[in-house]
Amino acid sequence: MPQRSVKEQLIEHAEDVFRQQGFSAASVQDLTVAAGVPKGSFYNHFASKQDLAREILLRYVRATDISMLADEGLPARERLRRHFAGQVERTMRTGLEFGCLLGTLSAESAAAGQEVRAGADAGYTQWVGAVAEAVAAGQRSGEISAGIEPGRLAGTLIDGFEGAALRAKATGQTGPVDDFMTITLDRLLS
Amino acid sequence: MPQRSVKEQLIEHAEDVFRQQGFSAASVQDLTVAAGVPKGSFYNHFASKQDLAREILLRYVRATDISMLADEGLPARERLRRHFAGQVERTMRTGLEFGCLLGTLSAESAAAGQEVRAGADAGYTQWVGAVAEAVAAGQRSGEISAGIEPGRLAGTLIDGFEGAALRAKATGQTGPVDDFMTITLDRLLS
Repeated sequence: MPQRSVKEQLIEHAEDVFRQQGFSAASVQDLTVAAGVPKGSFYNHFASKQDLAREILLRYVRATDISMLADEGLPARERLRRHFAGQVERTMRTGLEFGCLLGTLSAESAAAGQEVRAGADAGYTQWVGAVAEAVAAGQRSGEISAGIEPGRLAGTLIDGFEGAALRAKATGQTGPVDDFMTITLDRLLS
Repeated sequence: MPQRSVKEQLIEHAEDVFRQQGFSAASVQDLTVAAGVPKGSFYNHFASKQDLAREILLRYVRATDISMLADEGLPARERLRRHFAGQVERTMRTGLEFGCLLGTLSAESAAAGQEVRAGADAGYTQWVGAVAEAVAAGQRSGEISAGIEPGRLAGTLIDGFEGAALRAKATGQTGPVDDFMTITLDRLLS
């Protein structure tokens, strides 16, 4: 199945290319070179660079480890802390200087077009939903103060993380993500 | 002074071009067309697109209204609230779908090169410093709990705003910036 293999190779390598270069600066040639496939093969598998970027965004969000968010053996605040610690660790592992792929592609969504924007929108919706479930569990158990709709509180947590990853990227410092973990997370979950 | 005028026209229009298209997607031709100047004139005034982007970033941060942050006639929390409300308003006025220019160029800083990254870094440093002074004033007056270094708390506020502007951009919703104002700001300044 050579055709399927080319598509898989493109998908496998595109995440790093988009993370490191962003959407606009990454060319179809960059993507095919990274995947080790002929340039001409790209459009046999994807209608456009946008099409691949949306696919990569959705895979990136699906690959986000949300397992601990539903771990009923842990207090809800601890589930949330472990989840975001995992996101910090993932961003450090793939290069703090490149930031979070969802954030990077979201920032380019105005120029990248409707498909990329829709992928980012769907990615945020999915992530907010998973975090909101742990927030709701914490509100039910009394660990997290009630009175704010779980999805809205979940959104502010995610925004705090994304903003911190963005500043860490621009400044080359880990302070922003450390402070997200020790200040923002704690205050928002009080 | 025709040469000076061309440079000024480029600077005057580049902010909108970079905000709307981002760094990589905006070409030198986009910049000269927007400014209404000959394409060939660009390199008489700027060494590179990076050079202009860094200049625009620094101007954008300098144009940020921080006057209320030092207004001793207001409680420190109110100064901070007004400052961030002004940033939300500025982002809405220039198009929520384009987000904050500092955030957009920071997100592209890995591919845009050292000059743009240094501009974003300097922009963050300047902004964090101005916000930190109001945080410190609030800690002295007892309005804001002490125990966290003002610059670190200021950074988390800015990250919360930037993350919210980013999600608002990708999702097309104002909810994230509204929730920054009513949830994140309140909790971080408790």
